[in-house]
Amino acid sequence: MWMQKVYRNEIYFDNAATSRYKPQSVIKAMVAQMRASANPGRGGHRSAIEAGMTVESARSVIESHLGAGAVVWTKNCTEALNQAIFGLNPDGTVIISTFEHNSVYRPLVRLEQQKRIKLKILEGENGLITPDALNAAIDGDTALIVLCEVGNVIGTRQPVAELSRVAAANGIPMIVDTAQSLGYGLASDYGSVDFVCCSGHKGLHGPQGTGFLWINGNRHTLRPLIYGGTGRDSHSPVQSPEAPEGLESGTLNTPGIAGLAAGAEWSFANLGQNARHIAMLIDFLAEELKKIPGVKLIGRGESVLSFNLGDLGSTETGDRLNEAGISVRAGLHCAPLAHRYLGTLKQGTVRIGAGVENTLKECELLIAAVRRIAASTAI
Amino acid sequence: MWMQKVYRNEIYFDNAATSRYKPQSVIKAMVAQMRASANPGRGGHRSAIEAGMTVESARSVIESHLGAGAVVWTKNCTEALNQAIFGLNPDGTVIISTFEHNSVYRPLVRLEQQKRIKLKILEGENGLITPDALNAAIDGDTALIVLCEVGNVIGTRQPVAELSRVAAANGIPMIVDTAQSLGYGLASDYGSVDFVCCSGHKGLHGPQGTGFLWINGNRHTLRPLIYGGTGRDSHSPVQSPEAPEGLESGTLNTPGIAGLAAGAEWSFANLGQNARHIAMLIDFLAEELKKIPGVKLIGRGESVLSFNLGDLGSTETGDRLNEAGISVRAGLHCAPLAHRYLGTLKQGTVRIGAGVENTLKECELLIAAVRRIAASTAI
Repeated sequence: MWMQKVYRNEIYFDNAATSRYKPQSVIKAMVAQMRASANPGRGGHRSAIEAGMTVESARSVIESHLGAGAVVWTKNCTEALNQAIFGLNPDGTVIISTFEHNSVYRPLVRLEQQKRIKLKILEGENGLITPDALNAAIDGDTALIVLCEVGNVIGTRQPVAELSRVAAANGIPMIVDTAQSLGYGLASDYGSVDFVCCSGHKGLHGPQGTGFLWINGNRHTLRPLIYGGTGRDSHSPVQSPEAPEGLESGTLNTPGIAGLAAGAEWSFANLGQNARHIAMLIDFLAEELKKIPGVKLIGRGESVLSFNLGDLGSTETGDRLNEAGISVRAGLHCAPLAHRYLGTLKQGTVRIGAGVENTLKECELLIAAVRRIAASTAI
Repeated sequence: MWMQKVYRNEIYFDNAATSRYKPQSVIKAMVAQMRASANPGRGGHRSAIEAGMTVESARSVIESHLGAGAVVWTKNCTEALNQAIFGLNPDGTVIISTFEHNSVYRPLVRLEQQKRIKLKILEGENGLITPDALNAAIDGDTALIVLCEVGNVIGTRQPVAELSRVAAANGIPMIVDTAQSLGYGLASDYGSVDFVCCSGHKGLHGPQGTGFLWINGNRHTLRPLIYGGTGRDSHSPVQSPEAPEGLESGTLNTPGIAGLAAGAEWSFANLGQNARHIAMLIDFLAEELKKIPGVKLIGRGESVLSFNLGDLGSTETGDRLNEAGISVRAGLHCAPLAHRYLGTLKQGTVRIGAGVENTLKECELLIAAVRRIAASTAI
């Protein structure tokens, strides 16, 4: 049997892809659920009801932070975004930022190829979209706005609360991708956002295989992305799209949801402390990297930072850091629009994603390794 | 924090919904992956590669049993079926059996509503489809055949190997739903089946939140159901549909996949022994239930059995068994076509799903409880 190894001396700086730290409560909740395995919402017996309560109690953990709404469980943030985008079935122009991940860009390109929508990509200064710029971009054809709150390459944070009020004032639905913001930064106000999409395994410190779509109010009905059994109206061949269950066909990932709830609870309780710690590490890294000859700091946010070493391919720099026992992410990070904007489409960037377990000592080792690579390379 | 309870004295007979028993190796593999959390296929560093190896090694566990093919990970069998059905985008008549679950029926009804397909439901004797009946049903308009190998209400097993050869001889693609067969019965020959869909948490004894679509050969290209990052061709706004990665957008459920691989390995290694044990329990239950006045045995298969107590609503019988500490499933089991065929659309059925951990002693307790309920009820 294959068993995944832990590299004990690894210095892990790829937390923007997946957070390494998982609270002990996450694993405990998952194991407890595995031992009591039963199908939530699919039977009247005690353990099925108990599994249902695991799922419902997890919904309330998300609502405690985002506000009252329908929490639809998905397998990842990508599915949540696809469910929101294809579920809304927009007809007209869709406005996005230049920092969108392929999980937003590719579903929209698919609709564009089908001549169903037109895409308008807002770049703004440093990729930042101001409320005025958004307001000016909206016209009679605008059908939808999709924005990542924090970009995954250089961590630009969009003023989502203000932007969502502009969208709402214009009657345009807005989807926000919070994969890089929820749990990694301070809380935002999503009161005017229609749809929040998130993954469970990043800032919420839960397991991979989890994510959710939070639907604010009853303004829009989404068409299901996946059809099947929803634990109700079994007799009907036509699926009710009523959220959340109508958008959750098939057996849910109950152990994953149990783990996500535990991770989210921990992340929300420690939000301020975690955000300050991570921002402190990124501050330090940005300052120190700037001092190294040949380093180009492409950009930085609160929890993420991108750089390159001269004209060295980002993958080559990444590989050398990996040889030094430091895990970072190199390449395009599934965000080609961002790299087109930054002028790094060919080189990519080396991305550092700081996490709650990272230490200043690890940052110093990272800096020392970059300095060694820079010194040994003609850049 | 919410923690799911185990009911220690529960007698669990709802294994057709979710198997209660999970080998210790399943939980071990999941915990190991959680401790080494990294994103498979999403980075060049050691722990991302290690996570990628977890995913690839799990694919080979499935291939070791089904044969060489592309193993696409999904969140459940329902997603696998939706990916296969919508991905093929059939145009013409789709043939199904009367035992299809809503995970097959509802996506097809959706296509029917869009006037894209016509549905032809084969009933056959006892719901069984013979190769001759299938051959006779195929005509020039037939675009696709979708069949569950074992029905989830009375466990009818279709002769999938023979039926798939008929489909192949006629050049019609065939999708098989193995949610109730794989791991619960003896091995089948899927050599002529184009697509096999399965869940991970039933006969494969893995965690909920897992499933897969096995694609046999390169005869058909599926349109992705979900668009996003696939860990390759990041620069391209258009997603390559190449299986498996092109159909696996977003971060995979790596802990779930690790658990599924461990569960499947155990299930495949113990297939004969498990199948014999489960069939012996169902044999015993069917014989004993028949002896109880008022019991109507609706039907039985190798691992599942449905009955009713006179005209008592199945939910009421199920509730009374639950009060006696015995978990069974009552209602329609997301299979309205089956109940229409069986004449139980209104009453539903009480379903017993036997599992590897169930004992004859538990069967005796179940029989005694049914006898008590029958005696105390005017039926």
